[in-house]
Amino acid sequence: MKKLINSADSVVTDALRGLAAAHPDLRVDVKNQFVARASGPRRGKVGLVSGGGSGHEPLHAGFVGYGMLDAACPGEIFTSPVPDQVIAASSAVDGGAGVLHVVKNYTGDVLNFGMAAELCADEGVEVATVVVDDDVAVRDSLYTAGRRGTGATVFVEKIAGAAAEAGAPLAEVRRVAEEVNSRSRSFGVALSACTTPAAGVPTFELGDDEVELGIGIHGEPGRTRSAMRGARELVRVAMDALHEDMPLDGDVLVMVNGMGGTPLIELYVAFAEVAAYLEEKGATLSRNLVGDYITSLDMQGFSVTACLLTPELTRLWDAPVQTPALRWGR
Amino acid sequence: MKKLINSADSVVTDALRGLAAAHPDLRVDVKNQFVARASGPRRGKVGLVSGGGSGHEPLHAGFVGYGMLDAACPGEIFTSPVPDQVIAASSAVDGGAGVLHVVKNYTGDVLNFGMAAELCADEGVEVATVVVDDDVAVRDSLYTAGRRGTGATVFVEKIAGAAAEAGAPLAEVRRVAEEVNSRSRSFGVALSACTTPAAGVPTFELGDDEVELGIGIHGEPGRTRSAMRGARELVRVAMDALHEDMPLDGDVLVMVNGMGGTPLIELYVAFAEVAAYLEEKGATLSRNLVGDYITSLDMQGFSVTACLLTPELTRLWDAPVQTPALRWGR
Repeated sequence: MKKLINSADSVVTDALRGLAAAHPDLRVDVKNQFVARASGPRRGKVGLVSGGGSGHEPLHAGFVGYGMLDAACPGEIFTSPVPDQVIAASSAVDGGAGVLHVVKNYTGDVLNFGMAAELCADEGVEVATVVVDDDVAVRDSLYTAGRRGTGATVFVEKIAGAAAEAGAPLAEVRRVAEEVNSRSRSFGVALSACTTPAAGVPTFELGDDEVELGIGIHGEPGRTRSAMRGARELVRVAMDALHEDMPLDGDVLVMVNGMGGTPLIELYVAFAEVAAYLEEKGATLSRNLVGDYITSLDMQGFSVTACLLTPELTRLWDAPVQTPALRWGR
Repeated sequence: MKKLINSADSVVTDALRGLAAAHPDLRVDVKNQFVARASGPRRGKVGLVSGGGSGHEPLHAGFVGYGMLDAACPGEIFTSPVPDQVIAASSAVDGGAGVLHVVKNYTGDVLNFGMAAELCADEGVEVATVVVDDDVAVRDSLYTAGRRGTGATVFVEKIAGAAAEAGAPLAEVRRVAEEVNSRSRSFGVALSACTTPAAGVPTFELGDDEVELGIGIHGEPGRTRSAMRGARELVRVAMDALHEDMPLDGDVLVMVNGMGGTPLIELYVAFAEVAAYLEEKGATLSRNLVGDYITSLDMQGFSVTACLLTPELTRLWDAPVQTPALRWGR
């Protein structure tokens, strides 16, 4: 195992130091392990806080900035942030209008954000929570009761972030976030396993001509293992899984996401097949992202996330955003 | 070897179809194999055309758009574009003020762009050329007489693109491009080899605890092979190589670039070390990029590119840019 790190113990804090050096418009609190906007909370604006295990970069810290998150709490690699991180971040970004926690549906995350929310309430910070559970691959999994939260998190953070930026109150920001989640579905395919710095060996074994269909973002098992196939066939498996769960029609926002080790040229090959699939189903490819947005360290593979847009969601998607990993419109 | 492709023969054209589907503001000519701005040439504006082998995405097609390239010509994987592509692209973007070719210093690229430039002149399109040769690792290499062109290409395309957008004439755009190249240095480190779709096996062998110092972007040999080390030591090797060739002082633009298979969290770990190195040398980390900008398929590793800024170059760097892979300021 070769990793561009100093030590497995320091990888998260070392990366936070790098983030601080690269992005002066972020306030990186290495000690309390959270990342916020350097500009501080805006009075009367709902704060958006997310977080989760590290190893999925640019999620979440890469999405802190104007029009998206106010703060992110990175846990250790593939490990939930602790409540203290979430409390510190929530307090730091509260502008008096409350804070929305965007939580991916993993047992540890839900538990720790839940504890943090209670303690925030004790301190006078109003917290609402949206739990993202878009992954159609499996009903329960190693770390999850119910569906896992994956790619839709990016959509929720962008769209709810735009609503908060526009001045929507907490209940409304939560409603929008829940609507995005309820209209989004994801499915992932692994061509290789990933290796955590601490373990030093791949999280699972995958044969030279095998793929894992429905992979989780920590390498947890999907629906089935199958023989390696071409991009067209793999994309069809993923898109069929989405379409069977939520018929794809109307205006669709699609993300073809790389798992971290997949060359960008291959993601565009996959995106061409996604576009062809949507055309075949009569859906309109309205907006898209192609690239690495929610990764699994060095895993090779991809996921597809689709969201059925409404005029309101489209407008919020198009609103300006200025973060390290997503930016347009200003 | 597992790749998310339909076939080794169709990977470039399949990816171009994906690019077309993802970016309606690009005109993707799959038949003539070039990518241009959908808005067409602007009368009186110098056109910027680049290109080179595919497998380095987002370079070059990901940099087509306002404030940067007018067109890109992707060759087959790790293979120079043919003159016909370059001629078609140059003709398509000529707004009557001439066209600058941005060429990385590889024998095939220099030859084919040179032939294209002569044929363009015959057709009445004035062409100037800048050859990028920033890689300090080796003097000559497998595919190069003189230094290889690598990360500085991104800086040249951004900064010369801004000059062209601002209305500078061809000679001036070329001067700026050459200034950026002359003030930039790069050095790359491979933790793993890459695998081309056609070959199906790694381009070279690298032991489990070895790294290649001074790697080329096609996997061509660097200065030396060494034992694997921590991020701090690897970054120091790279930064020392830059600093010995061009003392790093004043305002520096730095890119920490992933080779394609490197997790973003590791690039930020490396960037923290780059920032510490510059501070030690008394240089000012003025602007930066951290991410995958000039890749080598699935290779794991990184490169560092530094450019000694001037007030003019800083202003042009900060100018608005709107491309798939680089965007800010509007």
